[in-house]
Amino acid sequence: MLNDSWQLQDYLRERVRLVDSALDRFLPGAETLPTRLHESIRYSVFAGGKRIRPILMLAACEAVGGDIKVVLPAACAIEMIHSYSLIHDDLPAMDDDDLRRGNPTNHKVYGDATAILAGDGLLTEAFILLSDREVWNDVPADRVREAINLIARSSGSRGMVGGQVVDMEAEQAPVDLPTLEYIHTHKTGALILAAVEVGALLGGATIEQRRALCRYGEAAGLAFQVADDILDIVADQSQLGKSIGSDQQRGKATYPALLGLAGAREHADELRQRSLAALDIFSESAQPLREIANYIIDRSS
Amino acid sequence: MLNDSWQLQDYLRERVRLVDSALDRFLPGAETLPTRLHESIRYSVFAGGKRIRPILMLAACEAVGGDIKVVLPAACAIEMIHSYSLIHDDLPAMDDDDLRRGNPTNHKVYGDATAILAGDGLLTEAFILLSDREVWNDVPADRVREAINLIARSSGSRGMVGGQVVDMEAEQAPVDLPTLEYIHTHKTGALILAAVEVGALLGGATIEQRRALCRYGEAAGLAFQVADDILDIVADQSQLGKSIGSDQQRGKATYPALLGLAGAREHADELRQRSLAALDIFSESAQPLREIANYIIDRSS
Repeated sequence: MLNDSWQLQDYLRERVRLVDSALDRFLPGAETLPTRLHESIRYSVFAGGKRIRPILMLAACEAVGGDIKVVLPAACAIEMIHSYSLIHDDLPAMDDDDLRRGNPTNHKVYGDATAILAGDGLLTEAFILLSDREVWNDVPADRVREAINLIARSSGSRGMVGGQVVDMEAEQAPVDLPTLEYIHTHKTGALILAAVEVGALLGGATIEQRRALCRYGEAAGLAFQVADDILDIVADQSQLGKSIGSDQQRGKATYPALLGLAGAREHADELRQRSLAALDIFSESAQPLREIANYIIDRSS
Repeated sequence: MLNDSWQLQDYLRERVRLVDSALDRFLPGAETLPTRLHESIRYSVFAGGKRIRPILMLAACEAVGGDIKVVLPAACAIEMIHSYSLIHDDLPAMDDDDLRRGNPTNHKVYGDATAILAGDGLLTEAFILLSDREVWNDVPADRVREAINLIARSSGSRGMVGGQVVDMEAEQAPVDLPTLEYIHTHKTGALILAAVEVGALLGGATIEQRRALCRYGEAAGLAFQVADDILDIVADQSQLGKSIGSDQQRGKATYPALLGLAGAREHADELRQRSLAALDIFSESAQPLREIANYIIDRSS
């Protein structure tokens, strides 16, 4: 299946560049009033994220033969939402993290109040962009509406925000596997699934293609979290950009804690198989999605 | 001009009921998982707000002869955004308020982390509702898109959130009148203007009607804030639901502080005249908007 000339690292680097330059274009400039707020927003958005969600959206669009330029604004919007969620998660009232990807977290640099408002502004900016007439010229308005709805649902109180609430509650009591799955299908899985589904939708997927890509997105989203939990234990600090074993210290429920390290790796591999099987109806056009699923899991082994 | 049979207090009461029952229908139920989060969201949304923004949106729709049932979802969305902004404003990292409308603030009841997430969830919920296909059946998708964009812009980093940032910065240094106007046209004025403009848009306003209503919305929005500043000084605590003179104690810039109490009242009255003059092209259909402008200013005198 592998195309020899196709190199994942080059592909990812090129896509990160594409997404970063679009984010730079779509976000208010650092000189926009109030400048401190916009500096703070840009500080977190350009802190070296891997852009997994927007890259998955572009790849899902490609898989169904769509034009990635068309979905780029939605890809940026979903990254803004991911980025706001990290700013708020790191706050002292939440996870109280000082470091994120090796750099001081937003509130350590700008203070708690500005960090709260930077998150609020960034979340809102995603919807400004998603409803901007100029960027959606060639897309039917009803399809844009559906994309907005998928992204909003996945990130709201019955999606990402809900997952974060249950994750925090889980620090106070032992957690079973169903609760852990709830946390991750909501906290990280929902937005990853939305990224893939919106890529399919805006790329013009058939119903069958869209269903297949949703199955891929569900499995890959969960795999991403299992791999993250494993990485928290086995990686060294420089690789992680945060303190090693910080989830463990905090008493956070993780897959290795519940299944053991070997069991967690087995689970990750099963999710990899499931995500790859979902792509069986696609040919070469889904090769990036396949490689990304492998990459997500392999980085933890 | 006044219609004798038309009683403002009855009108407002009926509209509050209408908005409250729609909010109850559109918000996730308190039994929705995670229940604590949805309880917390409902605690703040149903804490006795005056529903000024949704009522203005419905009244603007009426002024241009539109069907208020059609704009009701957008009216609820704008109230959700207003409500999230109060939850975040009250946080210890922000204004650190223990009371809101006479009741403990959200974070005093549910804790800071849940309050942050309730705000995030509520802001997102507004966009879930605004992009919900079922509630917008009879409205062209492009008009809904424009409504989403107006609401998002007014509440983002160049709107309400930006105003809040400058307001907080203003606590650290003396503020001049242009800065105070910046704060209020952004922090409260932008969302009030958006309420009126979206009511006009979804109600089917002509360009001339929409422009007139925007002039009304600008003046009324600023008047609302001037009246609020005056009220902070002259009201007694039971009327206000928060500590009297709390803005003053905090060293907040206010209109009375900059213009004196008499000067602030004069300014409020000038804004009242401006908002009424903007409605000259309308007949009886704009009577609620006229009465509301008077009510906004009179409650502070």
